[in-house]
Amino acid sequence: MTKIWQKSKSKSNSIIENYNTGDDYLMDLEIFPFDVQASTAHAEMLGLIGVLTNEEVKSLVDELDSILKNFQKGRIQIRVEDEDCHTVIENLLIKKLGNVGKKIHTGRSRNDQVLTAVRLYTVSKLREITEINKDVITHFIEFAENNKNIPLPGYTHTQQAMLSSFGHWSLSFVEGLINDQEIINKAVDINNQNPLGTAAGFGVSFPLDRVYTKKKLNFDKNIINSLFAQASRGKFESLTLESLSQVMLTLSRFATDMLFFTARETGFVKVSEDLTTGSSIMPQKKNLDSMELMRGNASVIFSHQLTVKNIPKGVISGYNRDLQLIKKPLIESLNIAQSSLEVVREFIKGITINQDVIGKAIKKDIFAVDMANEMVEKDGVSFRDAYVKVGQALEDVKEFNLEENIKSKKSLGSPGNLDLGYYKKMLKKL
Amino acid sequence: MTKIWQKSKSKSNSIIENYNTGDDYLMDLEIFPFDVQASTAHAEMLGLIGVLTNEEVKSLVDELDSILKNFQKGRIQIRVEDEDCHTVIENLLIKKLGNVGKKIHTGRSRNDQVLTAVRLYTVSKLREITEINKDVITHFIEFAENNKNIPLPGYTHTQQAMLSSFGHWSLSFVEGLINDQEIINKAVDINNQNPLGTAAGFGVSFPLDRVYTKKKLNFDKNIINSLFAQASRGKFESLTLESLSQVMLTLSRFATDMLFFTARETGFVKVSEDLTTGSSIMPQKKNLDSMELMRGNASVIFSHQLTVKNIPKGVISGYNRDLQLIKKPLIESLNIAQSSLEVVREFIKGITINQDVIGKAIKKDIFAVDMANEMVEKDGVSFRDAYVKVGQALEDVKEFNLEENIKSKKSLGSPGNLDLGYYKKMLKKL
Amino acid sequence: MTKIWQKSKSKSNSIIENYNTGDDYLMDLEIFPFDVQASTAHAEMLGLIGVLTNEEVKSLVDELDSILKNFQKGRIQIRVEDEDCHTVIENLLIKKLGNVGKKIHTGRSRNDQVLTAVRLYTVSKLREITEINKDVITHFIEFAENNKNIPLPGYTHTQQAMLSSFGHWSLSFVEGLINDQEIINKAVDINNQNPLGTAAGFGVSFPLDRVYTKKKLNFDKNIINSLFAQASRGKFESLTLESLSQVMLTLSRFATDMLFFTARETGFVKVSEDLTTGSSIMPQKKNLDSMELMRGNASVIFSHQLTVKNIPKGVISGYNRDLQLIKKPLIESLNIAQSSLEVVREFIKGITINQDVIGKAIKKDIFAVDMANEMVEKDGVSFRDAYVKVGQALEDVKEFNLEENIKSKKSLGSPGNLDLGYYKKMLKKL
Amino acid sequence: MTKIWQKSKSKSNSIIENYNTGDDYLMDLEIFPFDVQASTAHAEMLGLIGVLTNEEVKSLVDELDSILKNFQKGRIQIRVEDEDCHTVIENLLIKKLGNVGKKIHTGRSRNDQVLTAVRLYTVSKLREITEINKDVITHFIEFAENNKNIPLPGYTHTQQAMLSSFGHWSLSFVEGLINDQEIINKAVDINNQNPLGTAAGFGVSFPLDRVYTKKKLNFDKNIINSLFAQASRGKFESLTLESLSQVMLTLSRFATDMLFFTARETGFVKVSEDLTTGSSIMPQKKNLDSMELMRGNASVIFSHQLTVKNIPKGVISGYNRDLQLIKKPLIESLNIAQSSLEVVREFIKGITINQDVIGKAIKKDIFAVDMANEMVEKDGVSFRDAYVKVGQALEDVKEFNLEENIKSKKSLGSPGNLDLGYYKKMLKKL
Repeated sequence: MTKIWQKSKSKSNSIIENYNTGDDYLMDLEIFPFDVQASTAHAEMLGLIGVLTNEEVKSLVDELDSILKNFQKGRIQIRVEDEDCHTVIENLLIKKLGNVGKKIHTGRSRNDQVLTAVRLYTVSKLREITEINKDVITHFIEFAENNKNIPLPGYTHTQQAMLSSFGHWSLSFVEGLINDQEIINKAVDINNQNPLGTAAGFGVSFPLDRVYTKKKLNFDKNIINSLFAQASRGKFESLTLESLSQVMLTLSRFATDMLFFTARETGFVKVSEDLTTGSSIMPQKKNLDSMELMRGNASVIFSHQLTVKNIPKGVISGYNRDLQLIKKPLIESLNIAQSSLEVVREFIKGITINQDVIGKAIKKDIFAVDMANEMVEKDGVSFRDAYVKVGQALEDVKEFNLEENIKSKKSLGSPGNLDLGYYKKMLKKL
Repeated sequence: MTKIWQKSKSKSNSIIENYNTGDDYLMDLEIFPFDVQASTAHAEMLGLIGVLTNEEVKSLVDELDSILKNFQKGRIQIRVEDEDCHTVIENLLIKKLGNVGKKIHTGRSRNDQVLTAVRLYTVSKLREITEINKDVITHFIEFAENNKNIPLPGYTHTQQAMLSSFGHWSLSFVEGLINDQEIINKAVDINNQNPLGTAAGFGVSFPLDRVYTKKKLNFDKNIINSLFAQASRGKFESLTLESLSQVMLTLSRFATDMLFFTARETGFVKVSEDLTTGSSIMPQKKNLDSMELMRGNASVIFSHQLTVKNIPKGVISGYNRDLQLIKKPLIESLNIAQSSLEVVREFIKGITINQDVIGKAIKKDIFAVDMANEMVEKDGVSFRDAYVKVGQALEDVKEFNLEENIKSKKSLGSPGNLDLGYYKKMLKKL
Repeated sequence: MTKIWQKSKSKSNSIIENYNTGDDYLMDLEIFPFDVQASTAHAEMLGLIGVLTNEEVKSLVDELDSILKNFQKGRIQIRVEDEDCHTVIENLLIKKLGNVGKKIHTGRSRNDQVLTAVRLYTVSKLREITEINKDVITHFIEFAENNKNIPLPGYTHTQQAMLSSFGHWSLSFVEGLINDQEIINKAVDINNQNPLGTAAGFGVSFPLDRVYTKKKLNFDKNIINSLFAQASRGKFESLTLESLSQVMLTLSRFATDMLFFTARETGFVKVSEDLTTGSSIMPQKKNLDSMELMRGNASVIFSHQLTVKNIPKGVISGYNRDLQLIKKPLIESLNIAQSSLEVVREFIKGITINQDVIGKAIKKDIFAVDMANEMVEKDGVSFRDAYVKVGQALEDVKEFNLEENIKSKKSLGSPGNLDLGYYKKMLKKL
Repeated sequence: MTKIWQKSKSKSNSIIENYNTGDDYLMDLEIFPFDVQASTAHAEMLGLIGVLTNEEVKSLVDELDSILKNFQKGRIQIRVEDEDCHTVIENLLIKKLGNVGKKIHTGRSRNDQVLTAVRLYTVSKLREITEINKDVITHFIEFAENNKNIPLPGYTHTQQAMLSSFGHWSLSFVEGLINDQEIINKAVDINNQNPLGTAAGFGVSFPLDRVYTKKKLNFDKNIINSLFAQASRGKFESLTLESLSQVMLTLSRFATDMLFFTARETGFVKVSEDLTTGSSIMPQKKNLDSMELMRGNASVIFSHQLTVKNIPKGVISGYNRDLQLIKKPLIESLNIAQSSLEVVREFIKGITINQDVIGKAIKKDIFAVDMANEMVEKDGVSFRDAYVKVGQALEDVKEFNLEENIKSKKSLGSPGNLDLGYYKKMLKKL
């Protein structure tokens, strides 16, 4: 297929061409629909400013609509020789509409095209992720409510430290995911700016109506400076991946806890069998593979975020082809984060708590600090002296009743004062 | 000096102790004042809830005040055997106030102490950075205004592409830094939550008045869940470093452009001599070392951000000592970003444009797309046909007048339609 | 298809299953042939120690051979529900050979299977890369020889510093790639150790003849400790990616130089048109996209290396599913490095030097240090005084003859003393 | 103090100067002695080729010797205004020797000076690390020998999988560290090449005797190409950090295991009290802080390795100031890895095994695969059928005697066939 930048039948070098395209054309399967959407807005706008006639606009818009339908039915592929989805779409328009198709590229460049499609795609994915995240938060709140005062040892340094509860533990993920969602929201804001009309990075002489395309594409506002539009590549993706990294930090902590709590030596919780995997050699194994992969996937996204930042670093202003390589880590990360949230949603629903086991696992020295605090309150000893006293006679630490001990922790956000209502209110706000 | 966790004169292993403390105690010089501030709020709050008497509060607050003054005068050092600033401060209180000093640690842990101090410190640094950033933006706007229509070749692929202007170029940094500031603001929001009162991560039985400490310390709101307070480590620092990374992406692009534009082969701009450095062997050299270091420093911060994320990954809920290592990359990055902004501020003021050199450097094929667009507008040729036609006869591209060509780019955000007013309005909003 | 770890028709959860498999099954297309090779060795060995009869061995080996042929003809696919290539191969053996097929997994685990296949694959790829690298070195030596004394400004700080030559420049890549090859060789050594027979990581009771499989699979030696075999994951891949990173550092420097030397403002070299790419909007553009992608691809591999290290960090001894995610960055990086070398090979062949342009670009102050050195040699002035003297009167620097100046640099490895013979000798040794 | 590149009293900008120097001058405290060593070799060589008289050489060498002694006694500081150790040393020579001091810089540049000093320093540190590593290996072998058949559950997916032993576990670190040492050795090789005499990267006209300096400085060979000498920055440091990363991967696995094995819920081992740390609030805590820091320090080094690679990426050939920032991550990483090895050495000596606890923790289904294997051996059932059979009736798995079961694993490298002799032999070879 003709490359849109080809002026003549020049010889080409397939080693170079394959290197240039890489597997980027496969990434374009994800952004294809958004390029159609942006092309439609662009065509309409060209009509508004008189560059295209109404008939031309209509035939372009209709044909773009039919291209989208064909794509959704799986009838359009992007081949390596097509380079990208932009070429496929423009070539299809030319094939079908001839001269009119050749007009769609007026006043735009692949540079603003790809930016527009990627930003639309990212906003769309982040919104899907938001919905799942809210659902996961809802499930964690429900789990917290159902298991509010069920004891769970609290750990520091992988050692039992003080008494916690499943309610307390579960809400730590809720508050984490609420913080994460705030960052996702900011990523949506930063993504949701219209680059269409900035062309190759230096504007155009056509009086493009960028306010129209902005509105049509539901962008919050326009990126004004056309050179900045290009310079924003790597930046908005990095913030996007930061928001996903934050989610993965929360989820990978859940995963690590699950692996620890389901080890035979702890055995605090069980998960339903459909969440586990067997071994090819050990018949007895029921493993939490997805929790391990979640830890690993956190690392993958962290590195991907680094890639999208390191690529533009040290590169002069204006589009440079290196930027193409930002697409893949972005797309992979969005998909990983989304499926990770889905997996965690399954897990929360599949947890059974082994209260007996936990009861036996808790040893009385978990109450050492409670005892020191009691000395402070009842005997007026200074904390530091009480601390030393208890530490020197740990065998004298008394056994507190678990549930009462949980309830005695009254400071805001302690196991005995979870403030569930706060989280329900926050969830509604998201 | 006694470690605050020592119950007895147990033998210690200096290899282990040195490893545990590392150079973290030096980092604590930065957060020392914020720990004093938080300790003051904590003491006052203990008074409010009746754990301390008014006299005890007064003597603690006065002594903390005097500790701060001594610290600011350089009279207090943190030695490796002190472990951290928290120990130094508590030990000084005990030394001076005896039993009253031993009461300050009631209802708190070093776990929420360090979190509080680091969050206060970070908010304070981000606000300093904000002020410098606004100043840098102001200078870039001024530079843009002064050099609005001065031609500058626009590059893609390190090749002259289309005509740009210094105004256009300068505003690309303005819009970048405004986007960056929005992310800094979000980082401030996420940092600005009160962890004081979450103790070791599992709350306490004392009815701490966390609303009081929140207000006293000017936090926006409380972190509710005490386990999340601990789990937030690595997360708020990562967002902080993301905001700094965004700044560094903008600044390192400026640096890379400066290095290219001041190379003898381009020679588009000169910088004042006090911004340059010589060579130890080549007497003729005047180098832009700080611009090179800015590129490198971007890489340093990117890696630091990764560190703060990778440390908590795969670690179970609750405080773990690994988290200590997050402080150093945080502090280093804040200092680097701040000084990088200061350096760029110096540079904008020191740029002289060589208009003659630029005029000669611009070759007429930079107008190829303008010529194609003219064909579209005047002759009604489709863009794609015009593109091929111009491409096949580049020698026929006509020479446009530079300033006219700049002005002809009328689409919003193009060199001929910079919308300077927008940026001034945005600056006021920041 | 039945998973090999399924004991019963338990319900399964497709969200979890899809997450667990991810796109790992696609990665297995690369290692499929090596798993066949290892399975063959394993079957033969089971025969040698009497676990299988000669007939059983023969039928397994024959069937494995036919599986390989079918795979190479594209007749075998790995579907997501197959999980991996190991399952596909074992299931095909069982389907064809029934009970005999069910015996192949005796004394092995997927844990040592995947390790063996990945190590064989990596060694094979590194050897392909070695061949291309040697070829690239050969071309750079040839280029150096052909352009030995052609002047090229030498840069420090992106500023002309001292005179260099294309021979000198070209050999800097030769010496780089020779160093890189040494590291590749070490990566081959570390990879080339036999893990087959370590089973799930804890050995087996069968007296497996690991010396036989080691020899049959052309491994240098056996990994002895079976737990270490598992713990080596992430480690040998990281070293592999380190060797590729080293190559990419060399090649991305070449790429960056090419982008600078082909900019219009320098114009020192041209590359043949088939190495360049056009623009979708600017008809005049001939861009070196592949050189830009090479810079970006360096960043991709650097991050991938980090991923393979961060995944195993903080994970307890023994196989954990996180490790699966190491395969993809490994495979992608090997392919990227290989194609990057191929692209550079094309480029060296396509470079034309513009001697005239270079001659004009060199300004006489490039000889400042030569002049200072002359003062030292002829006038007995100390270097530091000569340096100051020349620096204060740069206008008096005399113009040296370019070729003579190159030849005057006689110190070993200087432009005038390239020691081409050394590199030819080294190349033979590789 | 005068900067060695200053030609005149030009005004200077302290913001820029402080940014340029950063904390690099503090790093130079580590490489100071190596710059003295290299300066001595350089001076002697200048004598050999007649650039300096014998008297001049003698006075320089004597003065350098006395500078070194003063430095070692702590009498020489590097201040921020000195920029670096090279300046300090040259200025001291000039101060003391006048005109003769001004001659030391003949035929060299700070570019080859810093390279030489850093390479000498790195080789020296890697050799220290090697000695400690060998010592750690020795201790692990001893531990393995002493606890050869002491049972330890083997884990996959954080679940008991098959029986292992402390001998088996301990040797997994031995084999790891032996592999790591091979990579350290390669890092030594790559570092151990002489850059002295390559000057600023473009050679010099003086007939420097680089063979002499190479020999005098105990380098293995010369870097020939002077431009490559500069281009090697980031590369040799990255390989150095790769070798340290490999060590950290091994050690952080040890750390993670220790944290799991000392958790109360497992309680398999205890460590002596001097290896543990207390809590500021919980009197009962004895934490393994150094093991947690070791996990975190692995992340620090991984990121540092990335920094040293990302800095040179995308930078044109020849020295650029960005490279200065490579020193700090290099030096920090060498120190971290060294102290991490020292800490692990303390730990191995401080481990007590709780055999009783382990005995109770091992449940019989750990023998499921052994039972399947028995069916294969005794009943001639295929492995796959035996696997299914055992999996369907796990309650029938018989309890094997622990020590017998360990000994029954006869395949090379299994718990019953550790091949201790191999490791002793390897240790001698290192």
